[in-house]
Amino acid sequence: MANPTAAMLVIGDEILSGRTRDANMHHLAGQLTEAGIDLKEVRVVSDDSAAIIDATRVLSKSYAHVFTSGGIGPTHDDITADCIAAAFDTHIDVREDARALLQAHYDRQGAELNEARLRMARIPDGATLIDNPVSVAPGFQIENVYVMAGVPSVFQAMVASVLPTLKGGAPLVSASTRIERGEGDIAGPLAELASRFPDLSFGSYPYIKNGVYGANIVIRGADASAVEEATRELTSLFIDVVK
Amino acid sequence: MANPTAAMLVIGDEILSGRTRDANMHHLAGQLTEAGIDLKEVRVVSDDSAAIIDATRVLSKSYAHVFTSGGIGPTHDDITADCIAAAFDTHIDVREDARALLQAHYDRQGAELNEARLRMARIPDGATLIDNPVSVAPGFQIENVYVMAGVPSVFQAMVASVLPTLKGGAPLVSASTRIERGEGDIAGPLAELASRFPDLSFGSYPYIKNGVYGANIVIRGADASAVEEATRELTSLFIDVVK
Repeated sequence: MANPTAAMLVIGDEILSGRTRDANMHHLAGQLTEAGIDLKEVRVVSDDSAAIIDATRVLSKSYAHVFTSGGIGPTHDDITADCIAAAFDTHIDVREDARALLQAHYDRQGAELNEARLRMARIPDGATLIDNPVSVAPGFQIENVYVMAGVPSVFQAMVASVLPTLKGGAPLVSASTRIERGEGDIAGPLAELASRFPDLSFGSYPYIKNGVYGANIVIRGADASAVEEATRELTSLFIDVVK
Repeated sequence: MANPTAAMLVIGDEILSGRTRDANMHHLAGQLTEAGIDLKEVRVVSDDSAAIIDATRVLSKSYAHVFTSGGIGPTHDDITADCIAAAFDTHIDVREDARALLQAHYDRQGAELNEARLRMARIPDGATLIDNPVSVAPGFQIENVYVMAGVPSVFQAMVASVLPTLKGGAPLVSASTRIERGEGDIAGPLAELASRFPDLSFGSYPYIKNGVYGANIVIRGADASAVEEATRELTSLFIDVVK
Protein backbone atom coordinates (compact mmCIF):
# COMPACT_ATOMS: atom_id res chain seq x y z
CA MET A 1 0.00 0.00 0.00
CA ALA A 2 1.25 3.46 -0.86
CA ASN A 3 2.46 5.67 1.96
CA PRO A 4 0.38 8.68 3.03
CA THR A 5 1.32 11.87 1.17
CA ALA A 6 2.23 15.26 2.56
CA ALA A 7 2.98 18.79 1.47
CA MET A 8 4.64 21.69 3.24
CA LEU A 9 3.82 25.38 3.01
CA VAL A 10 6.60 27.74 4.11
CA ILE A 11 5.35 31.27 4.75
CA GLY A 12 7.65 34.24 4.90
CA ASP A 13 9.13 37.13 2.93
CA GLU A 14 12.44 36.59 4.70
CA ILE A 15 12.99 33.30 2.87
CA LEU A 16 12.06 34.72 -0.54
CA SER A 17 14.24 37.79 -0.11
CA GLY A 18 17.25 35.63 0.69
CA ARG A 19 17.63 37.16 4.13
CA THR A 20 17.02 33.87 5.92
CA ARG A 21 17.97 30.41 4.73
CA ASP A 22 15.07 28.11 5.48
CA ALA A 23 15.92 25.22 7.78
CA ASN A 24 12.46 23.79 8.41
CA MET A 25 11.94 22.12 5.03
CA HIS A 26 15.02 19.98 5.41
CA HIS A 27 14.09 19.04 8.97
CA LEU A 28 10.52 18.11 8.13
CA ALA A 29 11.58 16.17 5.02
CA GLY A 30 13.87 13.94 7.05
CA GLN A 31 11.31 13.42 9.80
CA LEU A 32 8.54 12.47 7.38
CA THR A 33 10.76 10.01 5.53
CA GLU A 34 11.56 8.31 8.81
CA ALA A 35 7.87 8.18 9.64
CA GLY A 36 6.91 6.60 6.31
CA ILE A 37 5.07 9.67 5.02
CA ASP A 38 5.97 10.85 1.51
CA LEU A 39 6.64 14.58 1.22
CA LYS A 40 5.51 15.30 -2.35
CA GLU A 41 5.61 19.06 -2.65
CA VAL A 42 6.80 22.19 -0.87
CA ARG A 43 5.65 25.70 -1.60
CA VAL A 44 7.21 28.87 -0.27
CA VAL A 45 4.98 31.94 -0.41
CA SER A 46 5.28 35.49 0.87
CA ASP A 47 3.36 37.14 3.72
CA ASP A 48 0.43 37.73 1.39
CA SER A 49 -3.13 36.70 2.31
CA ALA A 50 -4.27 35.60 -1.13
CA ALA A 51 -1.13 33.52 -1.70
CA ILE A 52 -1.41 31.78 1.69
CA ILE A 53 -5.13 31.08 1.39
CA ASP A 54 -4.85 29.77 -2.16
CA ALA A 55 -1.88 27.50 -1.42
CA THR A 56 -3.54 26.14 1.74
CA ARG A 57 -6.69 25.20 -0.16
CA VAL A 58 -4.85 23.54 -3.06
CA LEU A 59 -2.42 21.58 -0.90
CA SER A 60 -5.08 20.54 1.62
CA LYS A 61 -7.15 19.04 -1.19
CA SER A 62 -4.22 17.35 -2.93
CA TYR A 63 -2.36 15.67 -0.06
CA ALA A 64 -3.18 13.68 3.06
CA HIS A 65 -1.32 16.08 5.37
CA VAL A 66 -0.16 19.68 5.08
CA PHE A 67 2.43 21.25 7.38
CA THR A 68 2.89 25.01 7.50
CA SER A 69 5.81 26.96 8.92
CA GLY A 70 5.90 30.63 9.85
CA GLY A 71 3.68 33.63 10.42
CA ILE A 72 2.02 32.81 13.77
CA GLY A 73 3.86 35.30 15.99
CA PRO A 74 2.59 38.55 17.56
CA THR A 75 3.59 41.10 14.91
CA HIS A 76 1.48 42.78 12.23
CA ASP A 77 3.02 40.63 9.47
CA ASP A 78 1.98 37.39 11.21
CA ILE A 79 -1.18 36.64 9.25
CA THR A 80 -1.04 32.85 8.89
CA ALA A 81 -3.71 31.93 11.47
CA ASP A 82 -6.25 34.30 9.95
CA CYS A 83 -5.44 33.07 6.44
CA ILE A 84 -5.85 29.42 7.42
CA ALA A 85 -9.23 30.24 8.96
CA ALA A 86 -10.21 32.01 5.73
CA ALA A 87 -9.02 29.04 3.65
CA PHE A 88 -11.52 26.84 5.52
CA ASP A 89 -14.24 29.54 5.75
CA THR A 90 -14.02 29.30 9.53
CA HIS A 91 -14.40 31.95 12.21
CA ILE A 92 -11.28 32.96 14.14
CA ASP A 93 -10.83 34.89 17.37
CA VAL A 94 -8.86 34.80 20.60
CA ARG A 95 -9.70 31.42 22.10
CA GLU A 96 -9.92 30.90 25.83
CA ASP A 97 -7.72 27.79 26.05
CA ALA A 98 -4.92 29.45 24.12
CA ARG A 99 -5.32 32.69 26.05
CA ALA A 100 -5.03 30.79 29.33
CA LEU A 101 -1.77 29.18 28.24
CA LEU A 102 -0.28 32.55 27.33
CA GLN A 103 -1.64 34.24 30.47
CA ALA A 104 0.00 31.66 32.72
CA HIS A 105 3.25 31.92 30.79
CA TYR A 106 3.51 35.72 30.94
CA ASP A 107 2.38 35.75 34.58
CA ARG A 108 5.31 33.47 35.39
CA GLN A 109 7.62 35.76 33.45
CA GLY A 110 6.14 38.89 35.05
CA ALA A 111 5.39 40.22 31.55
CA GLU A 112 2.18 41.69 30.26
CA LEU A 113 -0.14 39.71 27.97
CA ASN A 114 -0.59 42.77 25.78
CA GLU A 115 -2.63 43.15 22.61
CA ALA A 116 0.21 42.00 20.35
CA ARG A 117 0.87 38.82 22.37
CA LEU A 118 -2.85 38.12 22.51
CA ARG A 119 -2.76 37.77 18.72
CA MET A 120 -0.99 34.44 19.33
CA ALA A 121 -4.18 33.15 20.99
CA ARG A 122 -6.18 33.63 17.77
CA ILE A 123 -7.26 30.10 16.86
CA PRO A 124 -9.83 29.08 14.24
CA ASP A 125 -13.04 27.45 15.52
CA GLY A 126 -12.73 23.68 15.58
CA ALA A 127 -8.94 23.62 15.56
CA THR A 128 -6.90 21.52 18.01
CA LEU A 129 -3.92 23.16 19.71
CA ILE A 130 -0.38 21.93 19.05
CA ASP A 131 1.87 22.01 22.08
CA ASN A 132 4.82 24.44 22.08
CA PRO A 133 7.22 23.39 24.84
CA VAL A 134 9.74 26.06 23.80
CA SER A 135 7.84 29.33 23.96
CA VAL A 136 4.25 28.31 24.88
CA ALA A 137 2.31 30.10 22.07
CA PRO A 138 0.58 27.14 20.45
CA GLY A 139 0.30 25.95 16.89
CA PHE A 140 -2.92 24.31 15.77
CA GLN A 141 -4.40 21.66 13.57
CA ILE A 142 -7.49 22.24 11.46
CA GLU A 143 -8.71 19.46 9.18
CA ASN A 144 -5.52 18.03 7.63
CA VAL A 145 -3.42 21.19 8.08
CA TYR A 146 -0.84 21.54 10.87
CA VAL A 147 0.03 25.19 11.50
CA MET A 148 3.41 25.63 13.14
CA ALA A 149 5.94 28.33 14.00
CA GLY A 150 8.80 29.44 11.77
CA VAL A 151 11.50 29.70 14.46
CA PRO A 152 13.38 26.42 13.89
CA SER A 153 13.59 25.32 17.53
CA VAL A 154 9.84 25.84 17.96
CA PHE A 155 9.01 24.27 14.59
CA GLN A 156 11.01 21.19 15.47
CA ALA A 157 9.35 20.86 18.87
CA MET A 158 5.92 21.11 17.24
CA VAL A 159 6.82 18.51 14.60
CA ALA A 160 7.87 16.23 17.42
CA SER A 161 4.46 16.69 19.08
CA VAL A 162 2.52 16.07 15.88
CA LEU A 163 4.32 13.20 14.16
CA PRO A 164 3.54 10.46 16.68
CA THR A 165 -0.17 11.15 16.13
CA LEU A 166 0.05 10.45 12.40
CA LYS A 167 -0.15 7.06 10.81
CA GLY A 168 2.77 6.47 8.53
CA GLY A 169 3.42 3.79 5.96
CA ALA A 170 6.57 1.77 5.56
CA PRO A 171 9.61 3.94 6.24
CA LEU A 172 11.93 3.92 3.25
CA VAL A 173 15.25 2.19 3.57
CA SER A 174 18.00 3.86 1.60
CA ALA A 175 21.61 3.11 0.82
CA SER A 176 24.04 5.63 -0.63
CA THR A 177 27.05 4.67 -2.72
CA ARG A 178 29.69 7.20 -3.68
CA ILE A 179 31.16 6.56 -7.09
CA GLU A 180 34.04 8.71 -8.24
CA ARG A 181 33.21 8.73 -11.90
CA GLY A 182 31.28 11.13 -14.14
CA GLU A 183 27.50 10.63 -14.14
CA GLY A 184 27.72 10.01 -17.88
CA ASP A 185 29.65 6.80 -17.25
CA ILE A 186 27.33 5.71 -14.47
CA ALA A 187 24.03 6.45 -16.20
CA GLY A 188 23.88 3.51 -18.63
CA PRO A 189 24.65 0.68 -16.19
CA LEU A 190 22.50 2.41 -13.55
CA ALA A 191 19.45 2.53 -15.83
CA GLU A 192 19.92 -1.15 -16.62
CA LEU A 193 20.15 -1.98 -12.91
CA ALA A 194 17.08 0.14 -12.14
CA SER A 195 15.06 -1.72 -14.77
CA ARG A 196 15.74 -4.98 -12.94
CA PHE A 197 14.53 -3.60 -9.59
CA PRO A 198 11.24 -1.89 -10.51
CA ASP A 199 10.12 -1.57 -6.87
CA LEU A 200 13.16 0.47 -5.89
CA SER A 201 13.96 4.07 -6.75
CA PHE A 202 17.43 4.98 -8.00
CA GLY A 203 18.68 8.53 -7.63
CA SER A 204 21.94 9.92 -8.92
CA TYR A 205 23.26 13.06 -7.25
CA PRO A 206 26.34 14.36 -9.00
CA TYR A 207 29.07 16.44 -7.42
CA ILE A 208 32.30 18.06 -8.47
CA LYS A 209 34.96 18.16 -5.79
CA ASN A 210 38.43 19.56 -6.40
CA GLY A 211 37.82 19.12 -10.12
CA VAL A 212 36.94 15.43 -9.75
CA TYR A 213 33.52 14.33 -10.99
CA GLY A 214 31.51 11.84 -9.01
CA ALA A 215 27.99 10.96 -7.96
CA ASN A 216 26.22 9.64 -4.92
CA ILE A 217 23.85 6.92 -6.00
CA VAL A 218 20.95 6.46 -3.63
CA ILE A 219 18.81 3.35 -3.80
CA ARG A 220 15.55 3.54 -1.88
CA GLY A 221 12.69 1.20 -1.18
CA ALA A 222 10.53 -0.36 1.48
CA ASP A 223 12.23 -3.77 1.10
CA ALA A 224 15.57 -3.63 2.91
CA SER A 225 16.94 -6.83 1.41
CA ALA A 226 16.20 -5.67 -2.14
CA VAL A 227 17.96 -2.37 -1.43
CA GLU A 228 20.92 -4.33 -0.11
CA GLU A 229 21.07 -6.60 -3.13
CA ALA A 230 20.83 -3.76 -5.64
CA THR A 231 23.52 -1.84 -3.78
CA ARG A 232 25.80 -4.89 -3.87
CA GLU A 233 25.29 -5.20 -7.62
CA LEU A 234 25.94 -1.49 -8.13
CA THR A 235 29.14 -1.67 -6.13
CA SER A 236 30.36 -4.64 -8.16
CA LEU A 237 29.81 -2.66 -11.38
CA PHE A 238 32.05 0.19 -10.23
CA ILE A 239 34.24 -1.64 -7.76
CA ASP A 240 37.40 0.32 -8.63
CA VAL A 241 35.85 3.75 -8.09
CA VAL A 242 33.55 3.20 -5.12
CA LYS A 243 34.75 5.51 -2.34
CA MET B 1 6.77 50.98 -10.82
CA ALA B 2 6.61 47.50 -9.38
CA ASN B 3 9.61 45.24 -9.79
CA PRO B 4 9.42 42.26 -12.16
CA THR B 5 8.25 39.07 -10.44
CA ALA B 6 9.84 35.65 -10.40
CA ALA B 7 9.23 32.12 -9.23
CA MET B 8 11.55 29.18 -8.72
CA LEU B 9 10.87 25.51 -9.35
CA VAL B 10 13.19 23.09 -7.55
CA ILE B 11 13.04 19.58 -8.98
CA GLY B 12 14.29 16.57 -7.09
CA ASP B 13 13.30 13.69 -4.85
CA GLU B 14 16.52 14.15 -2.89
CA ILE B 15 15.28 17.45 -1.45
CA LEU B 16 11.85 16.07 -0.54
CA SER B 17 13.28 12.96 1.10
CA GLY B 18 15.53 15.06 3.29
CA ARG B 19 18.66 13.49 1.84
CA THR B 20 19.96 16.78 0.44
CA ARG B 21 19.48 20.22 1.89
CA ASP B 22 18.67 22.57 -0.95
CA ALA B 23 21.13 25.42 -1.37
CA ASN B 24 19.94 26.90 -4.66
CA MET B 25 16.81 28.61 -3.37
CA HIS B 26 18.73 30.70 -0.89
CA HIS B 27 21.34 31.60 -3.49
CA LEU B 28 18.81 32.62 -6.13
CA ALA B 29 16.71 34.55 -3.60
CA GLY B 30 19.67 36.74 -2.65
CA GLN B 31 20.75 37.29 -6.25
CA LEU B 32 17.26 38.29 -7.39
CA THR B 33 16.83 40.73 -4.51
CA GLU B 34 20.10 42.40 -5.48
CA ALA B 35 18.93 42.57 -9.08
CA GLY B 36 15.61 44.19 -8.19
CA ILE B 37 13.50 41.19 -9.15
CA ASP B 38 10.91 40.02 -6.59
CA LEU B 39 10.93 36.28 -5.92
CA LYS B 40 7.29 35.62 -5.07
CA GLU B 41 7.01 31.84 -4.88
CA VAL B 42 9.11 28.70 -4.79
CA ARG B 43 7.84 25.19 -5.44
CA VAL B 44 9.71 21.99 -4.79
CA VAL B 45 8.40 18.96 -6.68
CA SER B 46 9.61 15.39 -7.11
CA ASP B 47 11.04 13.76 -10.24
CA ASP B 48 7.53 13.24 -11.57
CA SER B 49 6.52 14.32 -15.09
CA ALA B 50 3.01 15.47 -14.29
CA ALA B 51 4.17 17.49 -11.29
CA ILE B 52 6.95 19.21 -13.25
CA ILE B 53 4.81 19.98 -16.28
CA ASP B 54 1.93 21.31 -14.22
CA ALA B 55 4.12 23.52 -12.01
CA THR B 56 6.00 24.88 -15.05
CA ARG B 57 2.79 25.90 -16.78
CA VAL B 58 1.26 27.54 -13.71
CA LEU B 59 4.38 29.45 -12.70
CA SER B 60 5.21 30.51 -16.25
CA LYS B 61 1.77 32.09 -16.59
CA SER B 62 1.80 33.71 -13.16
CA TYR B 63 5.22 35.35 -13.01
CA ALA B 64 7.54 37.33 -15.30
CA HIS B 65 10.43 34.89 -14.88
CA VAL B 66 10.71 31.26 -13.76
CA PHE B 67 13.97 29.62 -12.73
CA THR B 68 14.26 25.86 -12.43
CA SER B 69 16.94 23.85 -10.67
CA GLY B 70 17.71 20.15 -11.10
CA GLY B 71 17.03 17.17 -13.33
CA ILE B 72 19.06 18.01 -16.44
CA GLY B 73 21.88 15.46 -16.04
CA PRO B 74 22.52 12.23 -17.95
CA THR B 75 20.71 9.69 -15.78
CA HIS B 76 17.31 8.08 -16.24
CA ASP B 77 15.75 10.20 -13.51
CA ASP B 78 16.76 13.45 -15.25
CA ILE B 79 13.50 14.29 -16.96
CA THR B 80 13.31 18.06 -16.60
CA ALA B 81 14.18 19.00 -20.21
CA ASP B 82 11.53 16.69 -21.64
CA CYS B 83 8.96 17.94 -19.14
CA ILE B 84 9.66 21.59 -19.96
CA ALA B 85 9.23 20.81 -23.67
CA ALA B 86 5.94 19.08 -22.87
CA ALA B 87 4.80 22.05 -20.77
CA PHE B 88 5.18 24.28 -23.85
CA ASP B 89 3.94 21.64 -26.33
CA THR B 90 7.30 21.82 -28.06
CA HIS B 91 9.36 19.13 -29.79
CA ILE B 92 12.61 18.08 -28.09
CA ASP B 93 15.58 16.11 -29.37
CA VAL B 94 19.37 16.14 -29.31
CA ARG B 95 20.27 19.51 -30.75
CA GLU B 96 23.37 20.01 -32.84
CA ASP B 97 24.74 23.09 -31.03
CA ALA B 98 24.46 21.40 -27.64
CA ARG B 99 25.88 18.14 -29.03
CA ALA B 100 28.89 20.00 -30.43
CA LEU B 101 29.63 21.58 -27.05
CA LEU B 102 29.56 18.19 -25.33
CA GLN B 103 31.53 16.47 -28.11
CA ALA B 104 34.36 19.01 -27.83
CA HIS B 105 34.33 18.72 -24.05
CA TYR B 106 34.53 14.92 -23.94
CA ASP B 107 37.09 14.88 -26.77
CA ARG B 108 39.30 17.11 -24.62
CA GLN B 109 38.77 14.79 -21.68
CA GLY B 110 39.35 11.67 -23.76
CA ALA B 111 35.96 10.38 -22.67
CA GLU B 112 33.18 9.00 -24.79
CA LEU B 113 30.06 11.02 -25.62
CA ASN B 114 27.91 8.00 -24.91
CA GLU B 115 24.14 7.68 -25.03
CA ALA B 116 23.66 8.79 -21.46
CA ARG B 117 25.78 11.93 -21.88
CA LEU B 118 24.01 12.71 -25.14
CA ARG B 119 20.80 13.10 -23.13
CA MET B 120 22.28 16.37 -21.90
CA ALA B 121 22.11 17.71 -25.48
CA ARG B 122 18.31 17.28 -25.55
CA ILE B 123 17.05 20.86 -25.97
CA PRO B 124 13.49 21.92 -26.86
CA ASP B 125 12.98 23.60 -30.24
CA GLY B 126 13.25 27.37 -29.99
CA ALA B 127 15.18 27.35 -26.70
CA THR B 128 18.35 29.40 -26.18
CA LEU B 129 21.31 27.71 -24.49
CA ILE B 130 22.56 28.88 -21.10
CA ASP B 131 26.32 28.74 -20.72
CA ASN B 132 27.78 26.26 -18.21
CA PRO B 133 31.38 27.26 -17.53
CA VAL B 134 31.74 24.55 -14.87
CA SER B 135 30.86 21.30 -16.62
CA VAL B 136 29.82 22.39 -20.16
CA ALA B 137 26.40 20.63 -20.40
CA PRO B 138 24.17 23.66 -21.04
CA GLY B 139 20.99 24.89 -19.46
CA PHE B 140 18.43 26.56 -21.64
CA GLN B 141 15.82 29.28 -21.78
CA ILE B 142 12.43 28.76 -23.36
CA GLU B 143 9.87 31.57 -23.23
CA ASN B 144 10.19 32.98 -19.68
CA VAL B 145 11.59 29.80 -18.12
CA TYR B 146 15.30 29.36 -17.33
CA VAL B 147 16.22 25.69 -16.93
CA MET B 148 19.36 25.16 -14.86
CA ALA B 149 21.33 22.42 -13.16
CA GLY B 150 20.87 21.29 -9.57
CA VAL B 151 24.53 20.97 -8.61
CA PRO B 152 25.06 24.21 -6.68
CA SER B 153 28.33 25.27 -8.35
CA VAL B 154 26.76 24.82 -11.79
CA PHE B 155 23.49 26.43 -10.77
CA GLN B 156 25.32 29.46 -9.46
CA ALA B 157 27.38 29.79 -12.63
CA MET B 158 24.23 29.62 -14.76
CA VAL B 159 22.47 32.22 -12.62
CA ALA B 160 25.49 34.46 -13.11
CA SER B 161 25.14 34.04 -16.91
CA VAL B 162 21.43 34.71 -16.93
CA LEU B 163 20.89 37.56 -14.48
CA PRO B 164 22.72 40.31 -16.40
CA THR B 165 20.36 39.68 -19.33
CA LEU B 166 17.25 40.41 -17.23
CA LYS B 167 15.85 43.82 -16.55
CA GLY B 168 15.42 44.38 -12.85
CA GLY B 169 13.57 47.07 -10.99
CA ALA B 170 14.87 49.05 -8.07
CA PRO B 171 16.96 46.83 -5.83
CA LEU B 172 15.60 46.89 -2.30
CA VAL B 173 17.59 48.55 0.39
CA SER B 174 17.28 46.86 3.75
CA ALA B 175 18.44 47.54 7.28
CA SER B 176 18.39 45.03 10.08
CA THR B 177 18.12 45.97 13.76
CA ARG B 178 18.58 43.43 16.51
CA ILE B 179 16.39 44.08 19.51
CA GLU B 180 16.82 41.91 22.55
CA ARG B 181 13.24 41.91 23.69
CA GLY B 182 10.30 39.58 23.12
CA GLU B 183 8.40 40.12 19.87
CA GLY B 184 5.29 40.74 21.98
CA ASP B 185 6.86 43.92 23.33
CA ILE B 186 8.08 45.03 19.93
CA ALA B 187 4.92 44.35 17.95
CA GLY B 188 2.79 47.32 19.07
CA PRO B 189 5.34 50.10 18.53
CA LEU B 190 6.50 48.39 15.32
CA ALA B 191 3.00 48.32 13.83
CA GLU B 192 2.61 52.01 14.67
CA LEU B 193 5.94 52.80 12.99
CA ALA B 194 5.02 50.71 9.95
CA SER B 195 1.75 52.62 9.55
CA ARG B 196 3.71 55.87 9.26
CA PHE B 197 5.98 54.48 6.48
CA PRO B 198 3.49 52.84 4.11
CA ASP B 199 6.06 52.49 1.29
CA LEU B 200 8.42 50.41 3.41
CA SER B 201 8.02 46.81 4.51
CA PHE B 202 8.67 45.85 8.12
CA GLY B 203 9.59 42.28 8.98
CA SER B 204 10.10 40.85 12.45
CA TYR B 205 12.16 37.67 12.73
CA PRO B 206 12.19 36.35 16.27
CA TYR B 207 14.90 34.24 17.80
CA ILE B 208 15.60 32.55 21.09
CA LYS B 209 19.25 32.41 22.03
CA ASN B 210 20.45 30.96 25.33
CA GLY B 211 16.95 31.44 26.68
CA VAL B 212 16.87 35.14 25.78
CA TYR B 213 14.08 36.31 23.45
CA GLY B 214 14.82 38.81 20.74
CA ALA B 215 13.98 39.73 17.17
CA ASN B 216 15.73 41.04 14.11
CA ILE B 217 13.62 43.78 12.63
CA VAL B 218 14.23 44.27 8.93
CA ILE B 219 13.02 47.41 7.19
CA ARG B 220 13.04 47.25 3.40
CA GLY B 221 12.22 49.60 0.60
CA ALA B 222 13.44 51.20 -2.60
CA ASP B 223 14.04 54.58 -0.91
CA ALA B 224 17.28 54.38 1.05
CA SER B 225 16.73 57.58 3.02
CA ALA B 226 13.28 56.45 4.16
CA VAL B 227 14.74 53.11 5.30
CA GLU B 228 17.41 55.01 7.20
CA GLU B 229 14.92 57.34 8.88
CA ALA B 230 12.59 54.50 9.92
CA THR B 231 15.53 52.53 11.28
CA ARG B 232 16.63 55.54 13.31
CA GLU B 233 13.14 55.91 14.79
CA LEU B 234 12.98 52.20 15.57
CA THR B 235 16.32 52.33 17.32
CA SER B 236 15.25 55.29 19.42
CA LEU B 237 12.14 53.37 20.57
CA PHE B 238 14.24 50.46 21.89
CA ILE B 239 17.51 52.25 22.56
CA ASP B 240 18.32 50.24 25.72
CA VAL B 241 17.94 46.83 24.07
CA VAL B 242 19.36 47.39 20.59
CA LYS B 243 22.32 45.03 20.22
